Amino acid sequence: MKLIMAIVQDRDRNKLSHALIEQNFRVTKLSSTGGFLKAGNTTFIIGTDDDRLQEALDIIKHNCKSREQAAPPVSPMGGNVEAYAPYPVEIPVGGATVFVLPVEQFHQF
Amino acid sequence: MKLIMAIVQDRDRNKLSHALIEQNFRVTKLSSTGGFLKAGNTTFIIGTDDDRLQEALDIIKHNCKSREQAAPPVSPMGGNVEAYAPYPVEIPVGGATVFVLPVEQFHQF
Amino acid sequence: MKLIMAIVQDRDRNKLSHALIEQNFRVTKLSSTGGFLKAGNTTFIIGTDDDRLQEALDIIKHNCKSREQAAPPVSPMGGNVEAYAPYPVEIPVGGATVFVLPVEQFHQF
Ligand code: NI
Ligand code: NI
Ligand code: NI
Repeated sequence: MKLIMAIVQDRDRNKLSHALIEQNFRVTKLSSTGGFLKAGNTTFIIGTDDDRLQEALDIIKHNCKSREQAAPPVSPMGGNVEAYAPYPVEIPVGGATVFVLPVEQFHQF
Repeated sequence: MKLIMAIVQDRDRNKLSHALIEQNFRVTKLSSTGGFLKAGNTTFIIGTDDDRLQEALDIIKHNCKSREQAAPPVSPMGGNVEAYAPYPVEIPVGGATVFVLPVEQFHQF
Repeated sequence: MKLIMAIVQDRDRNKLSHALIEQNFRVTKLSSTGGFLKAGNTTFIIGTDDDRLQEALDIIKHNCKSREQAAPPVSPMGGNVEAYAPYPVEIPVGGATVFVLPVEQFHQF
């Protein structure tokens, strides 16, 4: 038995939750802030048997992997003219920070 | 020293909190969602000496054990007539998912 | 790799967060309640390499250590006259409950 603690961006929260539950993983979500991921994020607590650990990690990686996304062009109005980009800019989004912890006992009451 | 992480239904939150504190356990509560327990739930973090671990687990089991509870009969008005049950229905409530984690160091500053 | 779980009073939250991030620790914060610290508190999750564990603990101790703080004199109006203290009273504030947990795997996706 392992306990996975995964901190992911809020934007990936529902997608990851859906994917894990679809594969019968048990998922508890805690609202969190800060961390390497600056924006609001979610801390997933996932209990898994040792032989499904890699599967769970693959699902997290697949759904939350850090990637680039086109941001809408910034308007020069009300902003820094210097920073004005008349073309779409790629900004990094997503990413997951994942701890795998040993579990001494697991109970379901 | 062990760290107990227990996910319980919100309905059992206050009862469990009271019972643990009465026995001098230190309890921290985090609001959480999802998991095997579909409704809103609470994640308890409890630090305990090894020789009181079983006592803490017994308190959690005693206060949160999965059980049946009578639900009020569903009115046929505004609902599915097929699903109408003119007698009280027993629905499962409660339950706790409990992880016991090893602790390498404990500090109280 | 270690995972530090530190429960601190809300009053020390921003100071601790700033001090940890300034030293390049990765910090995730969860809003929590109860515990030895009766007031609202924050649970910090900090991942650290083994060789920086003591540094992280020192920062927590330095910023959250239990100490006394002058409370404003209580007015006898609208309060218990017996409890009236015409001089500043020192009340204990701060403190941190800290668990250091072993980590089997760490991933950054
Ligand atoms: Ni699907
Ligand atoms: Ni009582
Ligand atoms: Ni500074």
